[in-house]
Amino acid sequence: MATSDISVKALKHIDSEDADYLISLVRSIPDFPKAGILFRDFMPVLADARGLKLLIDALIAALPVAADEFDVVAGLEARGFLIGPALAARLGKGFLAVRKAGKLPPETVSEEYTLEYGKAAVEVETTAIKSGDRVLIVDDLIATGGTAKAAADLIERCQGTVAGFSFVMELSGLEGVENLSQYPCSALMIMPA
Amino acid sequence: MATSDISVKALKHIDSEDADYLISLVRSIPDFPKAGILFRDFMPVLADARGLKLLIDALIAALPVAADEFDVVAGLEARGFLIGPALAARLGKGFLAVRKAGKLPPETVSEEYTLEYGKAAVEVETTAIKSGDRVLIVDDLIATGGTAKAAADLIERCQGTVAGFSFVMELSGLEGVENLSQYPCSALMIMPA
Repeated sequence: MATSDISVKALKHIDSEDADYLISLVRSIPDFPKAGILFRDFMPVLADARGLKLLIDALIAALPVAADEFDVVAGLEARGFLIGPALAARLGKGFLAVRKAGKLPPETVSEEYTLEYGKAAVEVETTAIKSGDRVLIVDDLIATGGTAKAAADLIERCQGTVAGFSFVMELSGLEGVENLSQYPCSALMIMPA
Repeated sequence: MATSDISVKALKHIDSEDADYLISLVRSIPDFPKAGILFRDFMPVLADARGLKLLIDALIAALPVAADEFDVVAGLEARGFLIGPALAARLGKGFLAVRKAGKLPPETVSEEYTLEYGKAAVEVETTAIKSGDRVLIVDDLIATGGTAKAAADLIERCQGTVAGFSFVMELSGLEGVENLSQYPCSALMIMPA
Protein backbone atom coordinates (compact mmCIF):
# COMPACT_ATOMS: atom_id res chain seq x y z
CA MET A 1 0.00 0.00 0.00
CA ALA A 2 1.04 3.58 -0.62
CA THR A 3 1.78 4.36 3.01
CA SER A 4 3.92 1.31 3.85
CA ASP A 5 7.10 3.42 3.95
CA ILE A 6 5.81 5.29 7.02
CA SER A 7 7.08 4.24 10.44
CA VAL A 8 5.97 5.08 13.93
CA LYS A 9 8.18 7.41 15.88
CA ALA A 10 6.55 9.02 18.92
CA LEU A 11 3.56 6.83 18.05
CA LYS A 12 5.13 4.31 20.45
CA HIS A 13 3.11 6.28 23.02
CA ILE A 14 -0.12 4.83 21.60
CA ASP A 15 -1.04 1.19 21.05
CA SER A 16 0.03 -0.49 17.85
CA GLU A 17 -3.45 -0.98 16.40
CA ASP A 18 -4.18 2.74 16.78
CA ALA A 19 -0.76 3.61 15.34
CA ASP A 20 -1.38 1.40 12.29
CA TYR A 21 -4.77 3.03 11.86
CA LEU A 22 -3.30 6.56 11.93
CA ILE A 23 -0.56 5.60 9.46
CA SER A 24 -3.14 4.03 7.12
CA LEU A 25 -4.93 7.39 6.86
CA VAL A 26 -1.90 9.35 5.58
CA ARG A 27 -2.06 9.68 1.81
CA SER A 28 1.13 9.85 -0.31
CA ILE A 29 0.89 11.78 -3.59
CA PRO A 30 3.82 11.62 -6.06
CA ASP A 31 4.91 14.76 -7.92
CA PHE A 32 2.99 17.32 -5.84
CA PRO A 33 3.35 20.27 -5.62
CA LYS A 34 6.04 19.68 -8.27
CA ALA A 35 7.81 16.83 -10.04
CA GLY A 36 9.97 14.70 -7.76
CA ILE A 37 8.21 15.65 -4.51
CA LEU A 38 6.27 12.94 -2.66
CA PHE A 39 3.58 14.91 -0.83
CA ARG A 40 2.33 13.54 2.50
CA ASP A 41 -1.28 14.49 3.06
CA PHE A 42 -2.73 14.29 6.56
CA MET A 43 -6.14 15.74 5.64
CA PRO A 44 -7.67 12.21 5.64
CA VAL A 45 -6.50 11.80 9.26
CA LEU A 46 -8.46 14.93 10.21
CA ALA A 47 -11.47 13.90 8.12
CA ASP A 48 -11.86 10.67 10.07
CA ALA A 49 -13.47 11.09 13.51
CA ARG A 50 -11.39 8.29 15.06
CA GLY A 51 -8.28 9.55 13.25
CA LEU A 52 -8.68 13.12 14.55
CA LYS A 53 -9.18 11.91 18.12
CA LEU A 54 -6.16 9.58 17.91
CA LEU A 55 -4.05 12.37 16.41
CA ILE A 56 -4.76 14.87 19.20
CA ASP A 57 -4.34 12.16 21.87
CA ALA A 58 -1.03 11.06 20.34
CA LEU A 59 0.31 14.62 20.05
CA ILE A 60 -0.45 15.13 23.74
CA ALA A 61 1.05 11.76 24.76
CA ALA A 62 4.20 12.56 22.78
CA LEU A 63 4.69 16.22 23.81
CA PRO A 64 8.42 16.99 23.75
CA VAL A 65 8.15 18.71 27.16
CA ALA A 66 5.63 18.44 30.00
CA ALA A 67 2.44 20.44 29.54
CA ASP A 68 3.32 22.66 32.51
CA GLU A 69 6.55 23.72 30.79
CA PHE A 70 4.82 25.88 28.18
CA ASP A 71 2.16 28.60 28.29
CA VAL A 72 0.95 28.86 24.73
CA VAL A 73 0.77 26.74 21.55
CA ALA A 74 1.87 28.38 18.28
CA GLY A 75 0.81 26.98 14.90
CA LEU A 76 2.33 27.67 11.49
CA GLU A 77 0.00 28.73 8.66
CA ALA A 78 -1.90 26.95 7.24
CA ARG A 79 -1.74 23.28 8.25
CA GLY A 80 -0.40 24.06 11.74
CA PHE A 81 -3.67 25.97 12.26
CA LEU A 82 -5.49 22.64 11.91
CA ILE A 83 -3.92 21.10 15.00
CA GLY A 84 -2.67 23.96 17.19
CA PRO A 85 -5.95 25.32 18.58
CA ALA A 86 -7.36 21.80 19.14
CA LEU A 87 -4.23 20.93 21.10
CA ALA A 88 -4.26 24.25 23.00
CA ALA A 89 -7.93 23.90 23.91
CA ARG A 90 -7.41 20.36 25.22
CA LEU A 91 -4.45 21.52 27.35
CA GLY A 92 -6.11 24.71 28.64
CA LYS A 93 -3.59 26.97 26.84
CA GLY A 94 -3.94 29.86 24.41
CA PHE A 95 -3.05 29.69 20.71
CA LEU A 96 -0.72 31.95 18.73
CA ALA A 97 -1.03 32.13 14.93
CA VAL A 98 2.27 32.39 13.03
CA ARG A 99 1.13 33.66 9.63
CA LYS A 100 2.64 34.21 6.22
CA ALA A 101 3.62 37.83 5.51
CA GLY A 102 0.83 40.33 4.90
CA LYS A 103 -2.08 38.41 6.43
CA LEU A 104 -2.21 39.86 9.94
CA PRO A 105 -3.48 43.34 10.81
CA PRO A 106 -0.93 45.81 12.17
CA GLU A 107 1.21 45.97 14.17
CA THR A 108 3.22 42.84 13.33
CA VAL A 109 6.75 41.54 13.81
CA SER A 110 8.19 39.49 10.96
CA GLU A 111 11.14 37.19 10.33
CA GLU A 112 12.49 36.55 6.87
CA TYR A 113 13.95 33.19 5.86
CA THR A 114 15.45 31.62 2.77
CA LEU A 115 13.64 29.13 0.57
CA GLU A 116 15.14 26.93 -2.12
CA TYR A 117 14.40 29.78 -4.56
CA GLY A 118 13.88 33.18 -2.99
CA LYS A 119 12.73 34.34 0.41
CA ALA A 120 9.60 34.21 2.57
CA ALA A 121 8.63 35.63 5.95
CA VAL A 122 6.54 34.61 8.95
CA GLU A 123 4.69 37.11 11.14
CA VAL A 124 2.98 37.41 14.50
CA GLU A 125 0.95 40.25 15.96
CA THR A 126 3.22 42.50 18.03
CA THR A 127 1.10 42.10 21.14
CA ALA A 128 0.71 38.32 20.77
CA ILE A 129 3.80 37.29 22.72
CA LYS A 130 4.42 38.51 26.25
CA SER A 131 7.99 38.61 27.51
CA GLY A 132 8.82 35.26 29.06
CA ASP A 133 5.97 33.32 27.39
CA ARG A 134 7.04 29.72 26.85
CA VAL A 135 5.82 28.61 23.43
CA LEU A 136 5.30 25.12 21.96
CA ILE A 137 5.40 25.32 18.14
CA VAL A 138 3.28 22.83 16.15
CA ASP A 139 3.06 21.96 12.47
CA ASP A 140 1.91 19.03 10.36
CA LEU A 141 5.31 18.20 8.90
CA ILE A 142 9.01 18.94 9.27
CA ALA A 143 11.12 18.78 6.12
CA THR A 144 14.27 20.95 6.27
CA GLY A 145 12.89 22.94 9.20
CA GLY A 146 13.40 26.35 7.58
CA THR A 147 9.97 27.74 8.45
CA ALA A 148 10.08 26.18 11.92
CA LYS A 149 13.45 27.79 12.65
CA ALA A 150 12.20 31.18 11.40
CA ALA A 151 9.19 30.89 13.73
CA ALA A 152 11.50 30.09 16.66
CA ASP A 153 13.74 33.07 15.85
CA LEU A 154 10.66 35.31 15.65
CA ILE A 155 9.34 34.15 19.02
CA GLU A 156 12.73 34.68 20.64
CA ARG A 157 13.04 38.14 19.11
CA CYS A 158 9.69 38.94 20.79
CA GLN A 159 11.24 37.91 24.15
CA GLY A 160 9.40 34.59 24.24
CA THR A 161 11.04 31.24 24.93
CA VAL A 162 10.65 28.26 22.58
CA ALA A 163 9.72 25.28 24.78
CA GLY A 164 9.86 22.81 21.89
CA PHE A 165 8.36 21.59 18.63
CA SER A 166 5.60 19.07 18.05
CA PHE A 167 5.15 17.69 14.51
CA VAL A 168 2.76 15.12 13.11
CA MET A 169 5.22 13.89 10.43
CA GLU A 170 8.97 14.02 9.92
CA LEU A 171 10.68 13.55 6.56
CA SER A 172 13.89 11.61 7.11
CA GLY A 173 17.17 12.50 5.41
CA LEU A 174 16.58 16.26 5.33
CA GLU A 175 18.23 17.11 8.67
CA GLY A 176 15.11 18.97 9.78
CA VAL A 177 15.10 17.85 13.42
CA GLU A 178 18.90 18.16 13.49
CA ASN A 179 18.54 21.80 12.41
CA LEU A 180 16.35 22.37 15.48
CA SER A 181 18.67 20.39 17.77
CA GLN A 182 18.79 23.09 20.43
CA TYR A 183 15.06 22.49 21.11
CA PRO A 184 13.10 19.45 22.32
CA CYS A 185 11.25 18.01 19.31
CA SER A 186 8.70 15.27 18.77
CA ALA A 187 7.17 13.80 15.61
CA LEU A 188 4.54 11.08 15.52
CA MET A 189 5.50 9.43 12.23
CA ILE A 190 8.71 9.33 10.18
CA MET A 191 8.94 8.65 6.45
CA PRO A 192 11.32 9.13 3.51
CA ALA A 193 11.35 12.54 1.80
CA MET B 1 -13.35 51.10 24.18
CA ALA B 2 -12.77 49.94 20.63
CA THR B 3 -15.06 46.93 20.87
CA SER B 4 -18.13 48.63 22.35
CA ASP B 5 -20.00 48.34 19.05
CA ILE B 6 -20.04 44.53 19.35
CA SER B 7 -23.18 42.85 20.66
CA VAL B 8 -23.95 39.37 21.82
CA LYS B 9 -25.99 37.22 19.51
CA ALA B 10 -25.83 33.48 20.20
CA LEU B 11 -23.66 34.47 23.16
CA LYS B 12 -26.93 34.54 25.08
CA HIS B 13 -26.13 30.83 25.55
CA ILE B 14 -23.26 31.72 27.89
CA ASP B 15 -23.34 33.86 31.02
CA SER B 16 -23.01 37.61 30.63
CA GLU B 17 -19.65 37.94 32.36
CA ASP B 18 -18.13 35.35 30.00
CA ALA B 19 -19.81 37.03 27.00
CA ASP B 20 -18.36 40.41 28.00
CA TYR B 21 -14.97 38.82 28.40
CA LEU B 22 -15.09 37.27 24.91
CA ILE B 23 -16.22 40.54 23.36
CA SER B 24 -13.43 42.42 25.13
CA LEU B 25 -10.84 40.22 23.40
CA VAL B 26 -11.96 41.04 19.83
CA ARG B 27 -9.71 43.71 18.35
CA SER B 28 -11.05 46.23 15.79
CA ILE B 29 -8.53 47.65 13.30
CA PRO B 30 -9.57 50.53 11.02
CA ASP B 31 -8.49 50.57 7.36
CA PHE B 32 -7.30 46.97 7.13
CA PRO B 33 -6.78 45.24 4.74
CA LYS B 34 -7.69 48.43 2.85
CA ALA B 35 -9.01 51.94 3.50
CA GLY B 36 -12.58 52.01 4.77
CA ILE B 37 -12.63 48.45 6.11
CA LEU B 38 -12.91 47.95 9.87
CA PHE B 39 -11.17 44.60 10.40
CA ARG B 40 -12.37 42.39 13.27
CA ASP B 41 -9.52 40.33 14.65
CA PHE B 42 -10.31 37.29 16.79
CA MET B 43 -6.68 36.15 17.17
CA PRO B 44 -6.56 37.64 20.70
CA VAL B 45 -9.53 35.42 21.64
CA LEU B 46 -7.53 32.35 20.60
CA ALA B 47 -4.36 33.62 22.27
CA ASP B 48 -6.08 33.79 25.65
CA ALA B 49 -6.51 30.40 27.36
CA ARG B 50 -9.82 31.40 28.94
CA GLY B 51 -10.94 33.06 25.70
CA LEU B 52 -10.23 29.95 23.60
CA LYS B 53 -12.09 27.70 26.04
CA LEU B 54 -15.08 30.08 26.16
CA LEU B 55 -15.09 30.34 22.37
CA ILE B 56 -15.26 26.58 21.78
CA ASP B 57 -17.82 26.14 24.57
CA ALA B 58 -19.97 28.94 23.12
CA LEU B 59 -19.79 27.59 19.56
CA ILE B 60 -21.00 24.24 20.84
CA ALA B 61 -23.74 25.79 22.99
CA ALA B 62 -24.92 27.83 20.01
CA LEU B 63 -24.76 25.15 17.28
CA PRO B 64 -27.45 25.91 14.67
CA VAL B 65 -28.51 22.24 14.69
CA ALA B 66 -28.11 19.42 17.22
CA ALA B 67 -24.73 17.68 17.21
CA ASP B 68 -26.32 14.43 16.05
CA GLU B 69 -27.64 16.16 12.93
CA PHE B 70 -24.23 16.45 11.26
CA ASP B 71 -21.35 14.03 10.62
CA VAL B 72 -18.42 16.27 9.84
CA VAL B 73 -17.23 19.84 10.47
CA ALA B 74 -15.86 21.80 7.49
CA GLY B 75 -13.65 24.87 7.97
CA LEU B 76 -12.83 27.59 5.44
CA GLU B 77 -9.16 28.47 4.88
CA ALA B 78 -7.44 29.96 6.79
CA ARG B 79 -9.24 31.28 9.88
CA GLY B 80 -11.91 28.56 9.77
CA PHE B 81 -9.03 26.10 10.23
CA LEU B 82 -8.42 27.67 13.64
CA ILE B 83 -11.78 26.62 15.06
CA GLY B 84 -13.04 23.72 12.94
CA PRO B 85 -10.78 20.88 14.11
CA ALA B 86 -11.04 21.97 17.77
CA LEU B 87 -14.83 21.90 17.46
CA ALA B 88 -14.81 18.57 15.58
CA ALA B 89 -12.49 16.93 18.11
CA ARG B 90 -14.69 18.06 21.01
CA LEU B 91 -17.78 16.68 19.27
CA GLY B 92 -16.20 13.40 18.13
CA LYS B 93 -16.54 14.30 14.43
CA GLY B 94 -14.08 14.46 11.54
CA PHE B 95 -12.87 17.70 9.94
CA LEU B 96 -12.97 18.68 6.27
CA ALA B 97 -10.64 21.43 4.97
CA VAL B 98 -12.16 23.76 2.36
CA ARG B 99 -9.07 25.32 0.82
CA LYS B 100 -8.26 28.12 -1.60
CA ALA B 101 -7.54 26.97 -5.15
CA GLY B 102 -4.26 25.18 -5.81
CA LYS B 103 -3.35 24.21 -2.25
CA LEU B 104 -4.68 20.64 -2.10
CA PRO B 105 -3.08 17.64 -3.80
CA PRO B 106 -5.06 15.99 -6.62
CA GLU B 107 -7.78 15.00 -7.17
CA THR B 108 -9.87 18.00 -6.12
CA VAL B 109 -13.29 19.46 -6.83
CA SER B 110 -13.54 23.24 -6.99
CA GLU B 111 -16.24 25.89 -7.00
CA GLU B 112 -15.67 29.34 -8.43
CA TYR B 113 -17.31 32.43 -6.94
CA THR B 114 -17.32 36.15 -7.61
CA LEU B 115 -15.48 38.67 -5.47
CA GLU B 116 -15.90 42.45 -5.49
CA TYR B 117 -13.16 42.52 -8.14
CA GLY B 118 -12.54 39.26 -9.96
CA LYS B 119 -13.09 35.63 -9.06
CA ALA B 120 -11.81 33.08 -6.56
CA ALA B 121 -12.41 29.38 -5.97
CA VAL B 122 -12.65 26.99 -3.05
CA GLU B 123 -11.61 23.33 -3.23
CA VAL B 124 -11.95 20.06 -1.39
CA GLU B 125 -10.28 16.71 -1.99
CA THR B 126 -12.48 14.55 -4.23
CA THR B 127 -12.57 11.73 -1.71
CA ALA B 128 -13.23 13.99 1.28
CA ILE B 129 -17.03 14.00 1.11
CA LYS B 130 -19.01 10.78 1.07
CA SER B 131 -22.47 10.85 -0.48
CA GLY B 132 -24.98 11.77 2.20
CA ASP B 133 -22.44 13.28 4.62
CA ARG B 134 -24.10 16.01 6.65
CA VAL B 135 -21.65 18.91 6.99
CA LEU B 136 -21.53 21.82 9.45
CA ILE B 137 -19.50 24.69 7.92
CA VAL B 138 -17.54 26.97 10.28
CA ASP B 139 -15.67 30.23 9.81
CA ASP B 140 -14.53 33.13 11.95
CA LEU B 141 -16.70 35.75 10.29
CA ILE B 142 -19.58 36.20 7.87
CA ALA B 143 -19.62 39.37 5.78
CA THR B 144 -21.52 39.02 2.46
CA GLY B 145 -21.37 35.21 2.70
CA GLY B 146 -19.86 34.74 -0.77
CA THR B 147 -17.21 32.23 0.28
CA ALA B 148 -19.62 30.46 2.62
CA LYS B 149 -22.17 30.03 -0.17
CA ALA B 150 -19.49 28.72 -2.56
CA ALA B 151 -18.44 26.16 0.08
CA ALA B 152 -22.06 25.06 0.47
CA ASP B 153 -22.49 24.72 -3.31
CA LEU B 154 -19.28 22.67 -3.46
CA ILE B 155 -20.39 20.30 -0.70
CA GLU B 156 -23.76 19.81 -2.35
CA ARG B 157 -22.12 19.15 -5.74
CA CYS B 158 -20.15 16.37 -3.97
CA GLN B 159 -23.49 14.84 -2.84
CA GLY B 160 -23.07 16.06 0.73
CA THR B 161 -25.76 17.89 2.69
CA VAL B 162 -25.11 21.24 4.39
CA ALA B 163 -26.47 20.90 7.94
CA GLY B 164 -25.79 24.56 8.77
CA PHE B 165 -23.25 27.30 9.40
CA SER B 166 -21.52 28.30 12.62
CA PHE B 167 -19.72 31.66 12.70
CA VAL B 168 -17.87 33.45 15.47
CA MET B 169 -18.75 36.93 14.19
CA GLU B 170 -21.41 38.42 11.92
CA LEU B 171 -21.10 41.80 10.21
CA SER B 172 -24.52 43.43 10.18
CA GLY B 173 -25.93 45.27 7.16
CA LEU B 174 -24.27 43.06 4.55
CA GLU B 175 -27.10 40.51 4.15
CA GLY B 176 -24.65 37.65 4.77
CA VAL B 177 -26.92 35.47 6.90
CA GLU B 178 -29.86 36.43 4.65
CA ASN B 179 -27.88 35.10 1.66
CA LEU B 180 -27.63 31.74 3.46
CA SER B 181 -31.27 31.78 4.54
CA GLN B 182 -31.97 28.26 3.30
CA TYR B 183 -29.58 26.93 5.98
CA PRO B 184 -29.61 27.07 9.79
CA CYS B 185 -26.98 29.64 10.85
CA SER B 186 -25.52 30.79 14.16
CA ALA B 187 -23.08 33.59 15.00
CA LEU B 188 -21.80 34.37 18.49
CA MET B 189 -21.32 38.12 18.11
CA ILE B 190 -22.77 40.74 15.77
CA MET B 191 -21.17 44.07 14.87
CA PRO B 192 -21.34 46.82 12.23
CA ALA B 193 -19.40 46.22 9.00
